[in-house]
Amino acid sequence: MEKFIEMLKDPKKLIIMAGPCAVEDEGYIEIAKAVKEAGADILRGGIFKPRTDPNTWQGIGEKGIELLKEAKRVTGLPIICEAMSAEQIKLLYDVVDMFQIGSRNMQSSELLKEFGRQDKPVLLKRGMGNTIKELIMAADYIRNEGNKNVLLCERGIKTFESYTRNTFDINCIPAVKNLCQLPIIADPSHGTGRRELVIPVALAAIAAGADGLIIEVHNHPEKAKTDGEQSLTIEMFKEGMKKIKKVAEAVGKTI
Amino acid sequence: MEKFIEMLKDPKKLIIMAGPCAVEDEGYIEIAKAVKEAGADILRGGIFKPRTDPNTWQGIGEKGIELLKEAKRVTGLPIICEAMSAEQIKLLYDVVDMFQIGSRNMQSSELLKEFGRQDKPVLLKRGMGNTIKELIMAADYIRNEGNKNVLLCERGIKTFESYTRNTFDINCIPAVKNLCQLPIIADPSHGTGRRELVIPVALAAIAAGADGLIIEVHNHPEKAKTDGEQSLTIEMFKEGMKKIKKVAEAVGKTI
Amino acid sequence: MEKFIEMLKDPKKLIIMAGPCAVEDEGYIEIAKAVKEAGADILRGGIFKPRTDPNTWQGIGEKGIELLKEAKRVTGLPIICEAMSAEQIKLLYDVVDMFQIGSRNMQSSELLKEFGRQDKPVLLKRGMGNTIKELIMAADYIRNEGNKNVLLCERGIKTFESYTRNTFDINCIPAVKNLCQLPIIADPSHGTGRRELVIPVALAAIAAGADGLIIEVHNHPEKAKTDGEQSLTIEMFKEGMKKIKKVAEAVGKTI
Amino acid sequence: MEKFIEMLKDPKKLIIMAGPCAVEDEGYIEIAKAVKEAGADILRGGIFKPRTDPNTWQGIGEKGIELLKEAKRVTGLPIICEAMSAEQIKLLYDVVDMFQIGSRNMQSSELLKEFGRQDKPVLLKRGMGNTIKELIMAADYIRNEGNKNVLLCERGIKTFESYTRNTFDINCIPAVKNLCQLPIIADPSHGTGRRELVIPVALAAIAAGADGLIIEVHNHPEKAKTDGEQSLTIEMFKEGMKKIKKVAEAVGKTI
Repeated sequence: MEKFIEMLKDPKKLIIMAGPCAVEDEGYIEIAKAVKEAGADILRGGIFKPRTDPNTWQGIGEKGIELLKEAKRVTGLPIICEAMSAEQIKLLYDVVDMFQIGSRNMQSSELLKEFGRQDKPVLLKRGMGNTIKELIMAADYIRNEGNKNVLLCERGIKTFESYTRNTFDINCIPAVKNLCQLPIIADPSHGTGRRELVIPVALAAIAAGADGLIIEVHNHPEKAKTDGEQSLTIEMFKEGMKKIKKVAEAVGKTI
Repeated sequence: MEKFIEMLKDPKKLIIMAGPCAVEDEGYIEIAKAVKEAGADILRGGIFKPRTDPNTWQGIGEKGIELLKEAKRVTGLPIICEAMSAEQIKLLYDVVDMFQIGSRNMQSSELLKEFGRQDKPVLLKRGMGNTIKELIMAADYIRNEGNKNVLLCERGIKTFESYTRNTFDINCIPAVKNLCQLPIIADPSHGTGRRELVIPVALAAIAAGADGLIIEVHNHPEKAKTDGEQSLTIEMFKEGMKKIKKVAEAVGKTI
Repeated sequence: MEKFIEMLKDPKKLIIMAGPCAVEDEGYIEIAKAVKEAGADILRGGIFKPRTDPNTWQGIGEKGIELLKEAKRVTGLPIICEAMSAEQIKLLYDVVDMFQIGSRNMQSSELLKEFGRQDKPVLLKRGMGNTIKELIMAADYIRNEGNKNVLLCERGIKTFESYTRNTFDINCIPAVKNLCQLPIIADPSHGTGRRELVIPVALAAIAAGADGLIIEVHNHPEKAKTDGEQSLTIEMFKEGMKKIKKVAEAVGKTI
Repeated sequence: MEKFIEMLKDPKKLIIMAGPCAVEDEGYIEIAKAVKEAGADILRGGIFKPRTDPNTWQGIGEKGIELLKEAKRVTGLPIICEAMSAEQIKLLYDVVDMFQIGSRNMQSSELLKEFGRQDKPVLLKRGMGNTIKELIMAADYIRNEGNKNVLLCERGIKTFESYTRNTFDINCIPAVKNLCQLPIIADPSHGTGRRELVIPVALAAIAAGADGLIIEVHNHPEKAKTDGEQSLTIEMFKEGMKKIKKVAEAVGKTI
């Protein structure tokens, strides 16, 4: 854990989180191996999915925990996974290395406080209707309870633009650097909603000073239960990592 | 309770909820009496306040329960109060007649499910960055668990307009009527953020078909700990109620 | 003209402008008669259409002038029509009683000045991405050149809400009343983009204090070349006018 | 002119336009020399300023033409300057090498057509309330008239975020590349509105695939009549150019 937190705090290291939106089945292990091989530092994959519509698939649930463990065993990668309640935090505690707080919960203050009482790092995603300053104040709800390892995540905001799912707020990256000391991670998958825009916006985020990336990758995006349109294929992720390396070096970072 | 729910379901009755943003002190009883006298049906007043900044006042907390009880005893009005966690739901259960789910929690699915297991009506406020359809789907999270008494609340959305705190989405009122069967309540206080715009927008909402209003009223708005700029004085509320009555009648409703 | 301007300035009179989005053919005369009969004060109908896409129909053009004249002769109604350049102003000058400046031109300062040098009233539509204060400052561009007869028009702004074409900013109505002396007209057709929402939002605008309405009406909305989805049928307009009358009376206005 | 247009069309060349927002006085020559020395390809500087408020400074006007000529003579740089009417196009024709169409005029179709009849390249800025597809369709208004040398410019859109003046839409850069063949230039000055964010967002735009930059630079930003807060000092621009060079090289471009 200490070594992991050290990596998160290294200002020269570009942190790469990758994996599918959701843990769906055994295919998760295959994706995990592929992103590890392509250079990812942390494996993503949700088992409880925060969906807008309750009548859609809500994630694999508790039984996904075994798949998370297996992926971790096989790849050695630390795991990031979203929790949406105190109960889910408990269920996930043993297997995850970092908790994710989703956009929809960014201002759920009582839940934020619960994360503030944990001893594992937290990735706090910006609400799609929230300002940069509101994001930083939400992090304060966590930090005030004791947990200082909070990473912010820009994942796009809602605007009138309809060609993209969200508008990735690139201004947020240098703005956060000016306004506080917390690391800022870019999520170009949700920030664009379109596979073909993910790598260009990832490169942009790095050039603007982001401390890391979280990218959705799937072995069969066309069959993904969630977020297929914004998931990279494994091949695209591998190719993208080469470009990511170059731009990272141009701004003095390593991957 | 039955009579209360009957009132909520009467399509001809315009439901008026009024009171301060927050229960602050003994002054609450005075406001409660005044809004009762002016014709309010339900008394509002939060004791746990969902603030953007954790370093601001977070509400009077548990000790406000006695003031809620006292206001209820004195006025006979049903009480609506916000809860932000399962724990707060328990604390408030005995004193409130209707729970309020705040904008910031509109998409906290696990919390919504908790409200779905309650046997008291729920007012679900639209998130400031959420669409009309997302609001209706959030209500489904509650209804799917068994609690069918959900009232929706339009309280303004975030836009580029900066003269007002939010942009009250008047289109939402008739749109909800077309899209589902749930009552829709208008909150012109948050929807405008400016005291002088509250009554005109309240009248607009009634004319557009809203089933009720929730309005912030304070005996000393200039001293209010929260939302002072958008709180009506008691005098303004009384005068406003006369106009509300006229427009309600013009569209076939009673107050 | 004097009598016309007097009507525009009467604070008790709710001004009703109605007609099709575009003058298409002889059917225009039929619509003109119908809206006159239903109680409209001013006839709308564009011959030069400001379209987003240059490869779509751009309006009937100059030859529509004869249809405007004929409609005016038959109904006796004053005409409002959009002009987008100094040249179009000249072409339309003899037949129109009021010029319309479209949303897309709200900040074309040189064009605004040209309207400022005219001696006919101007309806200035709010840009879909412009604030209330920007609208008022755009009117100043016209007024500073000498033409004081400017009416503002709220026609909805772009937001993230996608169920409706635009979000009608109801706050704008009372805000304009607080910020300046200019009349404010509501356009619920563009403000919603959906026929079934037009009358409810029209009623809302009146209740909030609007000085008038501009509504798209077509005898065959399903065949309209532009804006069919937001055009009322003649029957809907007639029925709507009865409701408009009631709400107008409730706020002390006449139609 | 031919060589100039060749440069604009070279896909490997990152085009750098720089200079003050407005030509104010003799200081313009000093800034022109400094941006030339730092590596700019094109000199910007408006003499007619499209201001939101007619009661603010409207630019130096016609007498600025001599300063534009002098700057061109001294530095040898091509000049880009905004025109807002057919008359201004004529006044500027002899001195400018590229016309700029401002955000406020992006949808003024009659004016767009006028630019379409010119034989000089045009930089078309995205309206602050317009979508990516609307920008491309506005370019079609120009191209349909014959002028094929149109460069698009992303300069930020209006959103609810208030820390920055606009939200630079980084998604727009790769989206334009997918949707059409036109070059896309980034304006990080208007896109952020804050000097300290300009270079990070400029680097982001290059990494995302932008074909060039337009940056506001002033020798005394604190005294600038317009846009002082978003203007770089000459020193900042020089330092920024070094970083721009590195990122450009990382994505296979030269400055």
